[in-house]
Parts: sequence; C-alpha cells; structure tokens
Amino acid sequence: MKVVKTVSELRDAVSAARQSGQNIGLVPTMGALHKGHGALIDRARAESGCVVVSIFVNPIQFDKKEDYEKYGRAMESDLAFCRERGTDLVFAPDEAEMYPQPQRVFVEARALSEYLCGMFRPGHFRGVATVVTKLFNMVQPDRAYFGEKDAQQLAIIQAIAADLNMPITIVPVATVREEDGLAISSRNVRLDTDQRSRAATLYRALRAAADRLASGARPVEARLAAINVLREQPSIRVEYLEIVDPQTMRPVEEIHGPVRVAAAVWIGETRLIDNVLQVHR
Amino acid sequence: MKVVKTVSELRDAVSAARQSGQNIGLVPTMGALHKGHGALIDRARAESGCVVVSIFVNPIQFDKKEDYEKYGRAMESDLAFCRERGTDLVFAPDEAEMYPQPQRVFVEARALSEYLCGMFRPGHFRGVATVVTKLFNMVQPDRAYFGEKDAQQLAIIQAIAADLNMPITIVPVATVREEDGLAISSRNVRLDTDQRSRAATLYRALRAAADRLASGARPVEARLAAINVLREQPSIRVEYLEIVDPQTMRPVEEIHGPVRVAAAVWIGETRLIDNVLQVHR
Repeated sequence: MKVVKTVSELRDAVSAARQSGQNIGLVPTMGALHKGHGALIDRARAESGCVVVSIFVNPIQFDKKEDYEKYGRAMESDLAFCRERGTDLVFAPDEAEMYPQPQRVFVEARALSEYLCGMFRPGHFRGVATVVTKLFNMVQPDRAYFGEKDAQQLAIIQAIAADLNMPITIVPVATVREEDGLAISSRNVRLDTDQRSRAATLYRALRAAADRLASGARPVEARLAAINVLREQPSIRVEYLEIVDPQTMRPVEEIHGPVRVAAAVWIGETRLIDNVLQVHR
Repeated sequence: MKVVKTVSELRDAVSAARQSGQNIGLVPTMGALHKGHGALIDRARAESGCVVVSIFVNPIQFDKKEDYEKYGRAMESDLAFCRERGTDLVFAPDEAEMYPQPQRVFVEARALSEYLCGMFRPGHFRGVATVVTKLFNMVQPDRAYFGEKDAQQLAIIQAIAADLNMPITIVPVATVREEDGLAISSRNVRLDTDQRSRAATLYRALRAAADRLASGARPVEARLAAINVLREQPSIRVEYLEIVDPQTMRPVEEIHGPVRVAAAVWIGETRLIDNVLQVHR
C-alpha cells in the first residue's frame, strides 16, 4: 500500500495503475475509519484493479469551527485499517495541498440541499460537493463509493456526476449497523453508556414508519408512528424526521415509488442521522 | 471533419483520438463563428493532435429569454468555417442532450462575479461556469482555448480549472480587432452603419486609460481619461468602466502589477464589451 500526500504524486500513481490496465475505485473519507467505511473499501476492492482511499477532514464543510476541530483524527490506525482491507493507494493531503489558496469556486446543488440536513447545516453540502468534485478531478476514478447512511449526500453526489457529465459511476453501499440496529458512525464513540443504550431508538423509529408504509399507510401516518417511537425517549430531541423522494430529497405526501424515511436526532451533545429505504410493493 | 450531436458519440470520437496518441484541444463556442473564434481554432490546431470545437447556445447563461432567442445561429456556415480551419471534431448538441432534465447542480465563482459584467448580468457567469464544466467533463481535453475579450469569463474559467483541480490547461488568446480597433464580436452585426462608425470609440477610450497608466497615472486619473473619450459620443452609454486586477477582477486603487482596463457600453440596443491588458513598466 502506497501513501501519498500531494496531488502530483497521486496523479502519478493513479496514472501508472491505469496504464497497466487497471480500473480505479475511489473511496473518499474523512478518516476515523470504521466498519461502514470497511464496507465501502470491500466493495471497491471487489470491483477495482486499483483501490484509492482518500483521508481528508474537509474544513469547508463544517458550519462550526469547533466541530471541525473536534472531528476524530486517527491517521496511524486508519492506515492500518486500509492496509488490512487491501487498499492500494491512500491519499492523505494536508489543508494547504487541498486549498493552496482560499477556495473561490464552489459546486452547489441547492435544490437538493433545501430540506433535511441541508436546512440545519447551511453551507455543509456546498463544502461536500466542492471537495468531492476536487477529489474526482484529482483521481478521475471509474467508480466512487458512498454510504447510504448519508442519503442526502449520496443524492447530491449522484446529481453532480449526472448533471456535470462526469464519466464516473457512483456506487451506493448499504448502511452497516450494530446488532441493535444503530447505524455505525464515527460520532457513536461520543455517546456515553446510557446514551448508547437509547441510541437504537432512532432505527426502531425509522423501521416503524417503513413498516406502516409497507402496510399501505400514508406518509403522514407513517411519520407519526416514527415520532411516537421517539417520544418514548424524552431525552432524544428530533431535528427532523421526513419521508422523502430518494432522488429529490423532498418530502412526499403520497407514495408513488421508493421513499426514504430519514431523520436527524440529538442525544445529549451528539447529532445522529439515519434513514431506511422503503420500496413500495 | 466529423460532426457529432450526442455525448456518447463525442466520447467515442475523443477516446479514439486519445488512443491513437493525440492530445486534445477544445474550443467551446456558441456558434456564429467569426475571426475571433478563428484565432482560437488556429491556436488549438497548432498545439493539438485533435481539435474539438463545440457549438452550443447555452440557455442557462442568458438572463433574458429574448437575448437567448435572438442570439445568432448559423450552423451551416459555422461548420464550413470549422472545416476550413482544420477542425477534427465538431460537437453540436441540442438542448435536450446538454440538459436532459432541469439542471440541479451549478458551478459558481461568486467572488469573481461580483463586479463588471457579473454585476449587470445576474446568473450569467453561473451559467457559463456550469456549461463549461460540463463540456470539460464530456471532452476531457488537455487544453481549452478562450478569448481575452471576455476577460471576466476567462478569469472565472482559470479559477475553475485551478480550484476544482481539473487536469486542463486554459489557454488565453489575444482579442482580434477590426482595422479601427473594434473588438470582433458576433454582436457587431447588430450595429447600423452610423453606430458601427462610432463603435471604435470604446477601444480608443480603453487605450487612453492604458496610455495614462503607462505614463504613471493613478487608476482614478486613467479611468477619467477613458470616460472623457467616451463622452465625445453622447449616444454611447457606459455600463461600467473599471481598472481591475486580471485575476480577481476587482477594481484596484493603486498599481502593483498588471491590470485590465475593462468596459461595457451600450450603443443603441447593442451591448459591447472590451478590455486591454496593461503591464506595468
């Protein structure tokens, strides 16, 4: 496994792999790697001659400076994690390499950013869209892998690839969960034992809505079922809980195709997001 | 010369050229080709194995629908023009090919769009930046050619390539002028004989400012000299006339390096823009 820190070394390594006939799979991450990232790397490994993992905590996607500073960093264990999973190339640039001057050009999908997380984290998805576009242009992968847990991010990145005509296939990978259903996230370590024991309520709430939809309930009823599950735990504060179209990420009032039940909740000082896809019968 | 109308034919043709070892030069145009475009194609021809000219009148960069509709279209003579100049491949998509659904993702360089044309044409540069990014991703050229006449557009496209880490060299090409100095533009045909005879006043005004700067005048004095030249022709209405940094496109108060003297004026119903670069002694 090769580890590079500059765009120029990255381009050289990728272009050597391509010249030897390998296709390129990219897994963009912010480090603090866990089983969720592992599923992305495994999928890339199965489909690619050369697996590239990028590790960069992207300052321009944090709406609050303290969130950027407290975001987990664990380069040594991340590199070991990548090595064990058969990664070929790790790109771990510093901030000056990614942003040699203040960024002037941004990529935005405002229509997809108006609801859900985008409503509560102004500028977040602009920062994500911009750094992902930069990474895509640096690596020029054939495929790039993103987790379904960040469903709005996934929808935005699929829109970027389609609407900006990038020759890249975006591969969604199913959310990895703990035994009790909690979606694996780097934020879970911030939960204390008591909070952790209540965190799976989020997934139970989403499932309750999805099960109601499967029985033919309307979105308004399914949403209420989910909110009632969350009310059992008054210490969980709901930021949003919506039933949305998976492409437009806008709330739906009637079911005409697949939907996502998506929520963000706060447990103490920790914000958790999760979603489940419900395909109509 | 091959003419293609779909992205998929375009990609096939470009990839065949690349596989045969040719580098790719792209000249993006909106058609109505004239000597200015000719200089771009000639430069691309001299530097590229495969010269691609795109012809597409981009609806999302027009702030007024009537401007879009009255924009000159001359596909047959444009194709003859490209053929005479040794173009290898013309990409002439229709609107449904470029925008199969309403565009959701945009590229923006707001910091570079706040002055000059960007102030008077809201949304214009967002439309330009987005369509150029799409064309860059469709063609993936080694070099792309843009005229210095559209100096703010040039600065924005240079920023896109740099800030989004595109592996593309942006090549600026000097403005081509009529004998009396008028910059060649597809809009010039809208001028009647009388208007045409007065149009070169714009260039004389820009030169007056540049000459004052060359003699050591401050920007405020040079700007006044240019405005005085334009005042000789009361039928010319000045939209803006500024002395700006060529990278940031922001007005400068002191000279610390190269500057552009840039203006937009109205002659009757026709808007003309022009600029000259002044490199400090």
